[in-house]
Amino acid sequence: MIVESSLTETRRIVRAARQQGRSVGCVPTMGALHKGHVSLIENARKDCDFIVATIFINPTQFGPNEDFTRYPRTLDADLELCRAAGADLIFTPPVSAMYAESAQTIVRVTRMAQVLEGAHRPGHFDGVSTVVTKLFNVTEPDRAYFGQKDFQQQLIIRQMVLDLDEPVEIITCPTIREADGLAMSSRNRFLSVDERQRASQLFHTLKLAESLAAESTLTPPEIAQQMTNHLKSVNGIDVQYAVIADSATLECLAERSDFAVALVAAKVGSTRLIDNQILRFR
Amino acid sequence: MIVESSLTETRRIVRAARQQGRSVGCVPTMGALHKGHVSLIENARKDCDFIVATIFINPTQFGPNEDFTRYPRTLDADLELCRAAGADLIFTPPVSAMYAESAQTIVRVTRMAQVLEGAHRPGHFDGVSTVVTKLFNVTEPDRAYFGQKDFQQQLIIRQMVLDLDEPVEIITCPTIREADGLAMSSRNRFLSVDERQRASQLFHTLKLAESLAAESTLTPPEIAQQMTNHLKSVNGIDVQYAVIADSATLECLAERSDFAVALVAAKVGSTRLIDNQILRFR
Repeated sequence: MIVESSLTETRRIVRAARQQGRSVGCVPTMGALHKGHVSLIENARKDCDFIVATIFINPTQFGPNEDFTRYPRTLDADLELCRAAGADLIFTPPVSAMYAESAQTIVRVTRMAQVLEGAHRPGHFDGVSTVVTKLFNVTEPDRAYFGQKDFQQQLIIRQMVLDLDEPVEIITCPTIREADGLAMSSRNRFLSVDERQRASQLFHTLKLAESLAAESTLTPPEIAQQMTNHLKSVNGIDVQYAVIADSATLECLAERSDFAVALVAAKVGSTRLIDNQILRFR
Repeated sequence: MIVESSLTETRRIVRAARQQGRSVGCVPTMGALHKGHVSLIENARKDCDFIVATIFINPTQFGPNEDFTRYPRTLDADLELCRAAGADLIFTPPVSAMYAESAQTIVRVTRMAQVLEGAHRPGHFDGVSTVVTKLFNVTEPDRAYFGQKDFQQQLIIRQMVLDLDEPVEIITCPTIREADGLAMSSRNRFLSVDERQRASQLFHTLKLAESLAAESTLTPPEIAQQMTNHLKSVNGIDVQYAVIADSATLECLAERSDFAVALVAAKVGSTRLIDNQILRFR
């Protein structure tokens, strides 16, 4: 496994692999890797001959009052996980190599990036779509792998790739969960024992939505209200949103639909968590 | 020479050429080709083994009150010029293939795209940078060729390529001029005989700036004032700007500099023309 911080050298190594006829899979990460990331690399390993994981804590996707500085940095452990999962190349650029002082270009997905996470984290998705475009341009993958946990993110990246004709296929991989259902996240390590226990209520809220969709005749707004009520009944959870949206456009659903996703965001103590669940209405 | 309107087929043809070890040059155009475009294709022919010219009148770079509908469409003559200049592949996508109804992604260069043309044509450069990114993603060229006549455009595309790590080298080719100095432009055909004669005053204004820079001790603002005065002395020319700017950032220059460009924009009758000249101060 090669660890490389230079953009041009990374591009050269990937191109050499492609020259040998190997297909290229890319797994963009911000480090602080967990089993969710490992499963992305393992999925890439199944489909592709040469796997590039990128580790870059992208400053432009954090708001001024967000947790960029405290975001966990665990490079040695990350590299070990990447090696064990079968990555061939780890691209770890410094911030200065990714963003020159003169940099002034953004890639912006408009409508879909304004709701939900986009509404709560202004500018976040501009940072995501811009850095992902850059990472694709450096690593030139055939396929790139994202987790379903960040549902809106993978949808926005799919939209961007479609709209800009980026020559890469986006693969969304299932959310990996702890035993009690909490979605794996690099931010889970910020939770106290108490908060960690409460955090699984996001999952239980989604399970509630899933069963109400499958077994009741409630409308999406009615189910969303029950989700909100459920979350609000837990002390120490600050609900940011609990909605049922069209799983292709993220527009909130008024009526039952074959393309529905329940999405929640909540602060547990000072840690902001998100999760989601595809719904099947009966 | 192949003429192809499908994105996927164009990508396949270019990739097949690359597979054979051929380097790829791209010349993006909006058709209505003239000797300026021909020189771009000829320059590409010198550097590259496989030349793709694109012909696409991009609606998103025209403002609501601009000349999208009257922009000249001369496909048969364009293809003849491309063939004679040595292009291998002409990509002529329909608007519907480039912009789905669901499309919502823009590539935006910020600072540099807000001045001069950007100030007079709001949204114009969003359209340019977005479509050029798309054309690069479809044709995956090693090099792409732009005319110096659109000075701000080539600078913005360079900035975008740099900022987004797009794997393409931008080559700027000299402006091609008529005998009286008027820069070749697809819009010149809109000029009446009378307007056509007056239009060469843009060039003479730039020559005035060039000689004042080389031979006087005037500052850039003083020279710019003389340019404006000169243009205003011509009946039927509506000056939009006449400035001397830093040739890398497009910020207006207060002092003489080694990196200076004079830029003019003016309406001659109903036709908007632009031109520019790199300056060498003595």
